[in-house]
Amino acid sequence: MINIKENERLTMLNHSCAHLLAQAVQHLYPNAKFWVGPAIEEGFYYDIDLGDEVIKEEDLEKIEKEMKKCSKDGKRIYREELTKEEALEKFKDDPYKIDLISRMDSEKEPISCYTQGDFTDLCRGPHVESTKEIKYFKLLKVSGAYWKGDSKNKMLQRIYGICFENEEDLQEHLKALAEAQERDHRKLGKDLKIFLIDDLVGKGLPMYLPNGFILWNELENYIRNKELERGYQHVLTPPLGNVDLYKTSGHWDHYQDAMFPKMEVEGEEFVLRPMNCPHHMIIYGNEIHSYRDLPIRIAEIARDARFETSGSLKGIERVRTFCQNDSHIFCTPEQIEQEFKGVVDLILEVYKEMGIHEYRFELSLRDPEDKIKYHQDDKMWNMAEDKLREVLNDLNIPYIEKIGEAAFYGPKLDVQVRPAVGNEFTLSTCQLDFCLPAKFDLTYVDKDGEKKTPVVIHRAIFGSIDRTMAYYLEETKGILPTWLAPVQVIAIPVNSEYQGDYAKEVCEELKKAKIRVELDDRNEKLGYRLREAQTMKVPYTLILGDKEKEAKTISYRLFGSEETTTVSIKEFIELITSEIKERKRRK
Amino acid sequence: MINIKENERLTMLNHSCAHLLAQAVQHLYPNAKFWVGPAIEEGFYYDIDLGDEVIKEEDLEKIEKEMKKCSKDGKRIYREELTKEEALEKFKDDPYKIDLISRMDSEKEPISCYTQGDFTDLCRGPHVESTKEIKYFKLLKVSGAYWKGDSKNKMLQRIYGICFENEEDLQEHLKALAEAQERDHRKLGKDLKIFLIDDLVGKGLPMYLPNGFILWNELENYIRNKELERGYQHVLTPPLGNVDLYKTSGHWDHYQDAMFPKMEVEGEEFVLRPMNCPHHMIIYGNEIHSYRDLPIRIAEIARDARFETSGSLKGIERVRTFCQNDSHIFCTPEQIEQEFKGVVDLILEVYKEMGIHEYRFELSLRDPEDKIKYHQDDKMWNMAEDKLREVLNDLNIPYIEKIGEAAFYGPKLDVQVRPAVGNEFTLSTCQLDFCLPAKFDLTYVDKDGEKKTPVVIHRAIFGSIDRTMAYYLEETKGILPTWLAPVQVIAIPVNSEYQGDYAKEVCEELKKAKIRVELDDRNEKLGYRLREAQTMKVPYTLILGDKEKEAKTISYRLFGSEETTTVSIKEFIELITSEIKERKRRK
Repeated sequence: MINIKENERLTMLNHSCAHLLAQAVQHLYPNAKFWVGPAIEEGFYYDIDLGDEVIKEEDLEKIEKEMKKCSKDGKRIYREELTKEEALEKFKDDPYKIDLISRMDSEKEPISCYTQGDFTDLCRGPHVESTKEIKYFKLLKVSGAYWKGDSKNKMLQRIYGICFENEEDLQEHLKALAEAQERDHRKLGKDLKIFLIDDLVGKGLPMYLPNGFILWNELENYIRNKELERGYQHVLTPPLGNVDLYKTSGHWDHYQDAMFPKMEVEGEEFVLRPMNCPHHMIIYGNEIHSYRDLPIRIAEIARDARFETSGSLKGIERVRTFCQNDSHIFCTPEQIEQEFKGVVDLILEVYKEMGIHEYRFELSLRDPEDKIKYHQDDKMWNMAEDKLREVLNDLNIPYIEKIGEAAFYGPKLDVQVRPAVGNEFTLSTCQLDFCLPAKFDLTYVDKDGEKKTPVVIHRAIFGSIDRTMAYYLEETKGILPTWLAPVQVIAIPVNSEYQGDYAKEVCEELKKAKIRVELDDRNEKLGYRLREAQTMKVPYTLILGDKEKEAKTISYRLFGSEETTTVSIKEFIELITSEIKERKRRK
Repeated sequence: MINIKENERLTMLNHSCAHLLAQAVQHLYPNAKFWVGPAIEEGFYYDIDLGDEVIKEEDLEKIEKEMKKCSKDGKRIYREELTKEEALEKFKDDPYKIDLISRMDSEKEPISCYTQGDFTDLCRGPHVESTKEIKYFKLLKVSGAYWKGDSKNKMLQRIYGICFENEEDLQEHLKALAEAQERDHRKLGKDLKIFLIDDLVGKGLPMYLPNGFILWNELENYIRNKELERGYQHVLTPPLGNVDLYKTSGHWDHYQDAMFPKMEVEGEEFVLRPMNCPHHMIIYGNEIHSYRDLPIRIAEIARDARFETSGSLKGIERVRTFCQNDSHIFCTPEQIEQEFKGVVDLILEVYKEMGIHEYRFELSLRDPEDKIKYHQDDKMWNMAEDKLREVLNDLNIPYIEKIGEAAFYGPKLDVQVRPAVGNEFTLSTCQLDFCLPAKFDLTYVDKDGEKKTPVVIHRAIFGSIDRTMAYYLEETKGILPTWLAPVQVIAIPVNSEYQGDYAKEVCEELKKAKIRVELDDRNEKLGYRLREAQTMKVPYTLILGDKEKEAKTISYRLFGSEETTTVSIKEFIELITSEIKERKRRK
């Protein structure tokens, strides 16, 4: 998918198209007031206050028509520079623009506005020279957006659109967009009966349906077994904690905005946990440790809850309750390299086995000049940052360094992926922490008999299982590899009266081999049942007729193919079992 | 363990002993004020207000001594009857007794008090005739108890004790008590590193340590597989919901006291869920169902949270966050019998496989005379109650009927067990519900084409996994069957310098066979390491010396035995694997 912001000309064009949109809206809705209308990666939008009026999807066509008219008018777009006083005077009837201007400093940067025909807007620019240049655009959707993104403020209406240089680029983009929507996990999640979000249960609180739970459970077992092989120890801790726990950790002071409100019970205050570190610190602190015991790798498939604004919620990618595949590795400073390498190894192994190829590594380091933000321990920082670079270089991993992007407590490595629709997000992370263990007075007794503070590595391979499911549904277009497919085989007797019993027999055999098989012996036409198996993207469809029944064989079709292969039940079980074991991706 | 309340004479004796305790406390703490001092199943207690003074465990001996003195005095205990006015006058300086008297009705029952020497107490009686009879007693513990059990009230001090007819009975009971404490899951949970409760995380919020998680995970997988075999479909739903969800279900009106306080977010109110029924109702309601689809068995290993007073919390038996092995079966009225039978079957199968033999069935039915409490549908109730009885009789299961104990929405079957210490509780339950589906407008299309309301069966085999763990730790005295033992084998090289490598090799082989093995190659004496394996109640201890290394064999000791058996590694793997598969109980 194109990123408009990476192209200067397209950025200017889209920004100008936002003005064209505003001009058209002004013609159609004379009471409209305009907030901001930037170019974004996906095109542009404009936030508009329409008073009591509401723009619906079906109104977009009408607005587009008016935009075309304004474009045809071919008005010149000209720039005017103003002092702050002039600007305040010019826009004195527009509280939104006044709000913007009052926070501007005309000493530093001139205040400018752009005019095209009957429409003038406060704007930094630049813009194209004439509305004539803005021809190949499309309005995409309209949604609500709080003024300044704050839910306490008024809800404005945000119209999204995109603009290109020519019709061909526009059409190509709209096609890609339609395809992306087709593989949007929200659509696939519904079609494949993976999850359900219901307002009565609550926004951002997904419920995993039987198909979703199977996928979830496979992912959970998969990653847990990987961790077991690598010496992690799993724990299970409660999804809430005393507020004092988060005061000790510092989350209460620095992270409260992302937390649900506290609950008071018998004078004790509890809060849903946004992350698991404090619980794991308490577990480490429950015993005395020697340097010989380290590293200790505490892991949990852990339920957390964070407050996200309703506007930012997105299917199971961005939710209010989620499940981290979390771990905290307690180690000595000398073990940082080995443990960091172990985590990177695990990430690479999992991505390879799952066939995830489109990702990039970001190494966030401190800004050594910034003596305020960062925990002051130059020796530790230098050593750790060097080791992290060394590991990545040794493994020959391309990565970008982001200076000054580290958390105050230590450097981190993030693995970024891009969903079908929307912004990049972090799928895996590995963060060093030089601070938290000290807050909980954690120690180990070193070789020299002295008590020392361990380093903690926070890491998550599946940042959250929810988000991994969202990403993987999109990555595979819902054609999940057989080991993850909720239904692996669907058995269809041609006529259930004649081959129904045989089909049941086949199903029993497959179930014994731990294959997830379903029987479709409904009194429906064969073609209908075959199409439904395709809709659900089931890997193998068995067609069982008289021939198969007599020869005790099965005929199968792979998803997406009309070719039929006949084998014995035993052969089929061997074939699919080995495919499951090898976690093969489907084509 | 004896139940004092089942024996009239012992009840009277213990009640009298509570008075003897109060008399002694009055002598030692002249400012003491007395609330109530009943006989209970476990003996007796007295709740006392001591102002600023605190009685500690070590003070109990002193109090016992004074009690012996009062007993030796051999004062007669005599009863006096009073009118309400006389009683109010007599106890006018005692606000606690005034509180009691003011709620009494001397018309219905005479108000009585009992005096022994210098001590008089308001009491219904009866009592023994003289303090001389109260000789064989023991004070057991002291703890805080809110006045009237309400945390908003003052904290009183509660002293517990027990009294018998003779020294032999007392000693026998104290021995049984000590044994019970030895197998109390709170002690075992600590010794075997199963769980941790820490005040900074919060009261009643257990954290499962690596050993505990293994046990948890085995139980979870075990019960989930049992359910899969029986056609249950698993889902995963969030641990909270919108308050409206619980208003719809009725929990908000009728169950709020047992819920955590609500949390407001963007004007939406959320609450931690105390049970999963509403979420599962929404899942059922998400699709249209035909009678052909029923029964639908939705199951979840579900995290819930309930508000329990801190005084009622008990290890992992009674907690504030817990995990139900829950299911809701949606069926037609005609399917009640078959589905109820299926649940009872599953309970019996699980109990048999886990070697649980000490339990009893309680069938709670409506009181047909009570036309207010119960959902009015006599035909449905009669049919369902008859079917339930029929199933239990057919299966030849002994049970007691409790008339009038059913919930308002339908009859239920509970399976009761008794922990090492404290009151009986429900381990498994199966409840019919004629009401909830209608509240969520749930329907199915019946054979006749009409929309009808399904019946719901709420059922839990492991009422909670937490509680099942508590119960099973006590039931097995911590000697968990090998399939559940966190560490199944501990490998000890006699001298790690000589047999250390061989021991590692053996461990690798066992790990490949999915056996949970740990290596103890510490530089400690063999005897010390053997004792530690016993302390952790590890099923198999391997002793690996030169002989074993040369012959490529292993010598093992079973827990609790000093006998050593030598076999090949392969034989050992076969032996332990089959034991795990058969889920054998250890002796």
